Amino acid sequence: MYEVFSLQNGRLVDEEAHFKRLFRSLKELSLKVPWNQAVLQVIIGEVLRRNRIEYGNVYLQISRGNARRSHQFPLSLPKPSLVVMANRISYECEKSMSGISVLTVPDIRWGRADIKSISLLPNVLAKQKAVMDDFNEAWFVESNGRITEGASTNAWIVDANGNLITRGLGKHILAGVTRKRVMELAVSNGLNIFERGFTVEEAYSASEAFLTSTTAGVMPVIKIDDHQIADGSPGKVTSKLCALYSKFLDDLRR
Amino acid sequence: MYEVFSLQNGRLVDEEAHFKRLFRSLKELSLKVPWNQAVLQVIIGEVLRRNRIEYGNVYLQISRGNARRSHQFPLSLPKPSLVVMANRISYECEKSMSGISVLTVPDIRWGRADIKSISLLPNVLAKQKAVMDDFNEAWFVESNGRITEGASTNAWIVDANGNLITRGLGKHILAGVTRKRVMELAVSNGLNIFERGFTVEEAYSASEAFLTSTTAGVMPVIKIDDHQIADGSPGKVTSKLCALYSKFLDDLRR
Repeated sequence: MYEVFSLQNGRLVDEEAHFKRLFRSLKELSLKVPWNQAVLQVIIGEVLRRNRIEYGNVYLQISRGNARRSHQFPLSLPKPSLVVMANRISYECEKSMSGISVLTVPDIRWGRADIKSISLLPNVLAKQKAVMDDFNEAWFVESNGRITEGASTNAWIVDANGNLITRGLGKHILAGVTRKRVMELAVSNGLNIFERGFTVEEAYSASEAFLTSTTAGVMPVIKIDDHQIADGSPGKVTSKLCALYSKFLDDLRR
Repeated sequence: MYEVFSLQNGRLVDEEAHFKRLFRSLKELSLKVPWNQAVLQVIIGEVLRRNRIEYGNVYLQISRGNARRSHQFPLSLPKPSLVVMANRISYECEKSMSGISVLTVPDIRWGRADIKSISLLPNVLAKQKAVMDDFNEAWFVESNGRITEGASTNAWIVDANGNLITRGLGKHILAGVTRKRVMELAVSNGLNIFERGFTVEEAYSASEAFLTSTTAGVMPVIKIDDHQIADGSPGKVTSKLCALYSKFLDDLRR
């Protein structure tokens, strides 16, 4: 399993939520580790210090460890493997202001997208298909026509009344930490949120669309398949959320 | 992706079929490699020679290569990675004569089980669940109640008339090389085969059940969940197929 933390001024963004998800993934995979949160925090801090990174992200990966190749877990459990790496990139809201395009693809992933596992082959193939077709991201569509989430992002639309719609939590999407943060920012700013699966057709005719992720923050979506969303520029609600998220990050820097 | 070859007297069993599947997996994943079949044969031969292995199996794994962590393929394609390892084990039909037990579990794998990918987390979790519950293998069941295949094997039953039933090829099962070989042996020995999905209930009340794989060969299944199959001992058809497969392997040794 893995986890990605965003980094602002040397601080991990929504650190508690990421650790909570990290330990949940481990639990769901029956993967016991000798490190608690405090230990992982020290290790991450040391990686950041030695690499002198203050803005960017931290990628953390844990596996069950080295063992003879077999489907069943090793009888004598090996020492789990831990990899932590840090990348120097910064979240810039301005970058996202032109908006991006999304290609819908069938959701053929396994039934536990809520576990942040490195078994990402379907996500990789979906993203690559999108890129080859000149799109920026792929959104997965279930056989009933409903969108679950993106290859590495959560999917959102805004309806004609300015309400936010995004898939509810469950086994078919990852519980995005940025998704949760944006929900809180939205609600505390008077916006309504409906957590439900929306269809591709709803998305085509939505007032606005956007995606969220730890690395992308709030990113406007202006095109889905060959359908322009509204007038093809980032919408008002999206821009407001983008600004709110930006302010949230800025406040962390102080 | 990966491939596993069985080894008899220094010879790869059903070599052509394994290579055909190997190159098909690579093609489905748009994974271009600089090695053709002849080159891979030389590499495998060298691994076997240096390890002095004549009976056992060969595990071969190919990845897209080293690149910066990203969902989309790297823009400048890296050199693919190739890992080949050989294990000293032997296929003994006698070992399998007491039969094994199988636990059915929901098939929550991704929609392309026909690609032999190392994204095996659902298979690993299924197998582990089976082992923890004192079973030897897990068989995957679709939401419509039909069995697809095992965590690392193909699933078979024999009906009251002595006909063989196993899932037809498609995206939901791996095209087992041993499955294909056993089908040929069965047909040339006068047995009928129906390639279709069978239900868990059909399996419970089957005359016989067994599984096939490169490493397990033909293996009788005498218990599925808490249901004993027939009288709880390997059936006649299964034993015949086991003997036929054993003879096929023996003939390779000459």
